[in-house]
Amino acid sequence: MEEKILELINQKKFSELKSMLSEMNAADLAVIFEEIEEKDLPVIFRILPKELAAEVFVEMESDMQQLLIEAFSDKELREVMDELFMDDTVDIIDEMPATVAKRILRQTDAQTRRMINQLLAYPDDSAGSIMTTEYIDLKKDMTVDMAFDRIRKIGFDTESIYACYVTDRSRRLLGIVSVKDLLLNQKDTVISKIMDENVIFVNTLDDREEVATQFEKYDLLAMPVVDKENRLVGIITVDDAIDVMKEEVTEDIEKMAAILPSEHSYFKMGVFETFKTRIPWLLLLMISATFTGAIISSFEEKLVAFSGLIAFIPMLMDTGGNSGSQASVTVIRSISLGDIEFSDIFKVLWKEIRVAFCCSVALALVNGAKLFLIDYLLLGTFNNDTHAIREILVVCLTLFCTVVVAKIVGCSLPILAKKIGFDPAVMASPLITTIVDAISLIIYFSFATFLLTA
Amino acid sequence: MEEKILELINQKKFSELKSMLSEMNAADLAVIFEEIEEKDLPVIFRILPKELAAEVFVEMESDMQQLLIEAFSDKELREVMDELFMDDTVDIIDEMPATVAKRILRQTDAQTRRMINQLLAYPDDSAGSIMTTEYIDLKKDMTVDMAFDRIRKIGFDTESIYACYVTDRSRRLLGIVSVKDLLLNQKDTVISKIMDENVIFVNTLDDREEVATQFEKYDLLAMPVVDKENRLVGIITVDDAIDVMKEEVTEDIEKMAAILPSEHSYFKMGVFETFKTRIPWLLLLMISATFTGAIISSFEEKLVAFSGLIAFIPMLMDTGGNSGSQASVTVIRSISLGDIEFSDIFKVLWKEIRVAFCCSVALALVNGAKLFLIDYLLLGTFNNDTHAIREILVVCLTLFCTVVVAKIVGCSLPILAKKIGFDPAVMASPLITTIVDAISLIIYFSFATFLLTA
Repeated sequence: MEEKILELINQKKFSELKSMLSEMNAADLAVIFEEIEEKDLPVIFRILPKELAAEVFVEMESDMQQLLIEAFSDKELREVMDELFMDDTVDIIDEMPATVAKRILRQTDAQTRRMINQLLAYPDDSAGSIMTTEYIDLKKDMTVDMAFDRIRKIGFDTESIYACYVTDRSRRLLGIVSVKDLLLNQKDTVISKIMDENVIFVNTLDDREEVATQFEKYDLLAMPVVDKENRLVGIITVDDAIDVMKEEVTEDIEKMAAILPSEHSYFKMGVFETFKTRIPWLLLLMISATFTGAIISSFEEKLVAFSGLIAFIPMLMDTGGNSGSQASVTVIRSISLGDIEFSDIFKVLWKEIRVAFCCSVALALVNGAKLFLIDYLLLGTFNNDTHAIREILVVCLTLFCTVVVAKIVGCSLPILAKKIGFDPAVMASPLITTIVDAISLIIYFSFATFLLTA
Repeated sequence: MEEKILELINQKKFSELKSMLSEMNAADLAVIFEEIEEKDLPVIFRILPKELAAEVFVEMESDMQQLLIEAFSDKELREVMDELFMDDTVDIIDEMPATVAKRILRQTDAQTRRMINQLLAYPDDSAGSIMTTEYIDLKKDMTVDMAFDRIRKIGFDTESIYACYVTDRSRRLLGIVSVKDLLLNQKDTVISKIMDENVIFVNTLDDREEVATQFEKYDLLAMPVVDKENRLVGIITVDDAIDVMKEEVTEDIEKMAAILPSEHSYFKMGVFETFKTRIPWLLLLMISATFTGAIISSFEEKLVAFSGLIAFIPMLMDTGGNSGSQASVTVIRSISLGDIEFSDIFKVLWKEIRVAFCCSVALALVNGAKLFLIDYLLLGTFNNDTHAIREILVVCLTLFCTVVVAKIVGCSLPILAKKIGFDPAVMASPLITTIVDAISLIIYFSFATFLLTA
């Protein structure tokens, strides 16, 4: 499909191209357009029917949008902008350099411009920043028939028509009625009789992640947004809520991997930008690991005496780190799904301690058996070491304690972080690993001191 | 709110309770009902209006559902099941023990039972397993007015009415028309004139994750599902697609933390069940770490001679692990978002190598400066070591090479895993860490051998 289109472009078969592109979906076209050479893009774009062109425009990456805007005449720009919904318009302007943004704003009328500026002013993470201002508003004394008339009148320019909002004279939200309700009731039924007054709504300044959670909890298609005076100012549609969910998950995953979250996709970030998202945690964690080094230094003499102990350091550190990150990642995900709250901390601890006990017994037994049967008896790797059995005991006891401590640290840190207002996701694997490393070495050397000096 | 309800239950003020609960939302009620004592639950449940009761029932956890089903009379059970949509019915039956499932099936008529059994037969991860069989089907020669009549007739029992599917006599999918299209066209317009023939659909056996991706890409509210003969058999609604997205993300995050995915939420899993999801990877990684131990053992003599080197092992291992997991997690997420494909492997490698270069230079410089200025000059920790400067050089060179290798391994393994049909998510932090540990030690000891024996 894609190759066929690129071929038609090269052969300049525009009428064939037009009939082919017109049948396609905007999201697919946007992907294909990414492959088109910059110089061909405005030409191809102009071939599309107006409505489809606007839809494709919305789906494109912002660098491509900018390219097109710069190629557009004022009239063309106005035509595209006229087709867009308010939330998309604002998103596009938000991504453009100041001069391009100004040019777009010049093509809009005074009222739209005022609205755009108002929407641009909402904080990036707020419900206001993802809402659109086109929605179906009804009055409570309308009949079903009158409601349908209103939908027919303003519905064409409205992104989501299936939830209609009933407001009073000062635009305060009174209730909600779905098109399904309208269709399944008699034409002369009064809206106030069928509207649902128990409306789920959010405030413009509410966190957009919270909004996404509500969509999922209540299975909504759209969510009304009200201002401080409880006046309806816009709606958020489910497709935008899905985008927020996706972005928030990516952000959480990045934080869990000790990366600073960024707004751009992988290939849209330059090398230096990527570097800047990764180096802070790497530096911090490297410096933290110095403490682990200090613990080893303080035990250096003994390590030289019992040099067999050194070989177990990576295994003990890794197993501790893995055990801890299993617990922390599980808890972080459960917090963000709403399954775990601060009040559950003891319940979580109690569960993790029991799980840790099972894991550590299994690990210590397997490790002990392997060391005794294979290394000691079979291979004789401990041949000239009179402390062999005691060394094996030290390793297994350390393993046992490390896993238990790692699970406790791993499950409790994210909950505590959340409580004091930090993002639990930063308490994931890398930080837990660094902490658990230090702890596991202290445990290791304590057991060694106790059992191997005698 | 919740306390008020529990109080009313204790005081047995049922009429007050009824008017209060009837105003509430099903999702909220389901959460509150989790707190109610088991013996009170059936009583409270019977207070609710039938439709709301069914909605609450769907939202509850399966253990609560089972409790209620066991308390229901056959008539009550039938009433609740009659209110449910087919996909919810199937989900509930799927979770119940065989005897309960059989009892539910006995309460349905032969046709419904056949349908349920058919839906139960779809594989767990398939589109068929999440679809519902109630949808609005239209014929292409109907008028808009006739379409509305059909919606009014069957819409009440249909979950999603806003996308209507146009089928031929053998139920083959011809096109799609939205209620918005119907509302914005004249009453005598023929459906074939306004339907969109470019329908996005999935097959019953398609992967449900793929389905969720399509919802997000095309901003859909519902997606038609067809069988092998291209006959329309059901639809998937956006709320179910959102649930799939959520579950798939949780599964990915679990895999990235070396946990086997499970279907249950944190507190719904027993200690032993949790143990079983965690121990396999812990054991495997512990045994893998033995190789790292073997590398150390083979270098034991030299480590005893240059005992200062031991203290840097944790820092080198951790920094390598963190660098590698940053790259692997970024790539894993980008693969699941569709930003990276196998063909991008060299583009990814080239980018990661440059990022790695920046990171490793920064880390090596900071580390070298810290060792030289603070440890060597200020604290004099290297006091009686004649090889001090060379040791610092070994550490910094190792750091540099480890970070570069870690990023290369971290970014390429997930892409290769995907290519050969494995889940890229298992190539995340823990496995990368284990591999990078071994590599970093080999690099460390090679530099040490080369620079410190002279």
